[in-house]
Amino acid sequence: MATRIQVYEVGPRDGLQNEPHIVPTEGKLRLLGLLSDAGLTRIEATSLVSPKWIPPLADAEEVVAGLPAHSGTVYGVLVPNAQGLARLASARARAGAATSVEVAVFLSASESHNRKNLNRTVGETLRALEDLVPAALRQGLRVRGYVSTAFGCPYEGTVESERVAAIALRLVELGCYQVSLGDTIGVGTPNQVRVLLGRLLEQLKPEQLALHMHDTRGTALANVLAGLEAGLTTFDSAVGGLGGCPYAPGASGNLATEDLVYMLHGMGYETGIDWPLLIAAGELAQKLVGHPLPGKGLKAEIAARVLLAGRGPA
Amino acid sequence: MATRIQVYEVGPRDGLQNEPHIVPTEGKLRLLGLLSDAGLTRIEATSLVSPKWIPPLADAEEVVAGLPAHSGTVYGVLVPNAQGLARLASARARAGAATSVEVAVFLSASESHNRKNLNRTVGETLRALEDLVPAALRQGLRVRGYVSTAFGCPYEGTVESERVAAIALRLVELGCYQVSLGDTIGVGTPNQVRVLLGRLLEQLKPEQLALHMHDTRGTALANVLAGLEAGLTTFDSAVGGLGGCPYAPGASGNLATEDLVYMLHGMGYETGIDWPLLIAAGELAQKLVGHPLPGKGLKAEIAARVLLAGRGPA
Repeated sequence: MATRIQVYEVGPRDGLQNEPHIVPTEGKLRLLGLLSDAGLTRIEATSLVSPKWIPPLADAEEVVAGLPAHSGTVYGVLVPNAQGLARLASARARAGAATSVEVAVFLSASESHNRKNLNRTVGETLRALEDLVPAALRQGLRVRGYVSTAFGCPYEGTVESERVAAIALRLVELGCYQVSLGDTIGVGTPNQVRVLLGRLLEQLKPEQLALHMHDTRGTALANVLAGLEAGLTTFDSAVGGLGGCPYAPGASGNLATEDLVYMLHGMGYETGIDWPLLIAAGELAQKLVGHPLPGKGLKAEIAARVLLAGRGPA
Repeated sequence: MATRIQVYEVGPRDGLQNEPHIVPTEGKLRLLGLLSDAGLTRIEATSLVSPKWIPPLADAEEVVAGLPAHSGTVYGVLVPNAQGLARLASARARAGAATSVEVAVFLSASESHNRKNLNRTVGETLRALEDLVPAALRQGLRVRGYVSTAFGCPYEGTVESERVAAIALRLVELGCYQVSLGDTIGVGTPNQVRVLLGRLLEQLKPEQLALHMHDTRGTALANVLAGLEAGLTTFDSAVGGLGGCPYAPGASGNLATEDLVYMLHGMGYETGIDWPLLIAAGELAQKLVGHPLPGKGLKAEIAARVLLAGRGPA
């Protein structure tokens, strides 16, 4: 029997958050619905940070209230603090009863990036999570943790794997069911993945970890392959490669879901994802942001279709 | 001691061949010189197929005659037949005595692609190579073989690894010092690489094989990683990802040299390649073809520089 791999779609949050164009709530909900229809069962929908911080996600409560109910799909929502958790609770009260939501909490492995993002030290953030994670669990919500800059920091460069591992282990201790290790600026290479996962898998089970690779230098799928070889079964990606790279305008950011799914299916893994519907979601995402997205699988599909159309009627 | 990996640069031939814009000979020679300066010691320079077939390479003899002499750099030239070999001999007579050249011979693993490209069956092509390869060897030229569509064919789909392996082994028997396995349309995934290499490495040494991956669906570096794990030490790539995909206009083609070198250096391999000079070569290539190239490492470098410039004087 083929191994099942969980693709964790992050485009609607990590992608749109970094797009200059603000997509209307209705467009976001259409995209979320189409992604669910395509078989993506874990989708990061939005972020309840202050609307002032991230204007493209200022409609987070409207998005949560309008989440398309889809049996089997769980939507992730980033929650930075107790106010965010309260906003989530009131938005969920307006959402359909059948809608499943989980919480994502986040911090960076490097001090400079954490301070820039959260205006706190890593230690202060972890102490705040000692309250936030149990509070979410008490509401019956599962909690996923994110460690950004796990493979390198735009301000500090190298980030030691000991440091990343210690933070990830702490998130698990606090109650996160899974920790996603983020290559925020797309600098990681497979040996780094092996070293970090090797360290963490001495203490955790593979399903407690995920990789969130960016494809800024084209290494994302090679890093995923190193993760698969280490036994991991969850990988984050964004439809169309949505999001770009916040530190290098014009460069690629998130690993594209199409590229990840193409490789996984080609290797005989099961994902439950429908390829034509995934491509349709990628095309909708392009339309919503108003420009071509960097995902290669999506580009190849669209180009092949243009080529076939050019042949004219048979 | 770090393992040395041979990057085989194919941009000036496989890249420019598929670019609609025809680059003047002088520009090609500047690019070849800069690539040599950057430490690329194997560079595929041009192709001596009929100028009518591939107008962008119609100046092949001028390129060979003008090749920048660079100790340690060997230039590869595609030679389709005896006329091509004769043209190579006369062009080499005009080149600098210090210029090293080797021959590349080529065919496809799939019948339809071979017929479309060479107007012959695979069997007919192999029989012609029974004369051509020894003829080149008698002139003191080393010969490299290429097997295109080794991971899939645009007309036939799947290509069986038995078939690819049989053709590659025959090229070695004929006298090719190395055979490069080409994923012409960028459909391969790591398990396919493992199966094909596993089969071939029962009979060949790793240095007798190379991988020539296209990044059409983002899988090129994952496939390279599978090749590294199998023990291979030579990988083809094109500066900037030059070349696009001939079967899908607008999509990516050749693996970008910057992306390959970034991953190799990140994993601790030695290539002898100077990163800033490689980036300079990528920028020159962009200028020569008159549009941005798809290579991600190149994009990330250029974007980071724009970002730094935006900060203004320190």
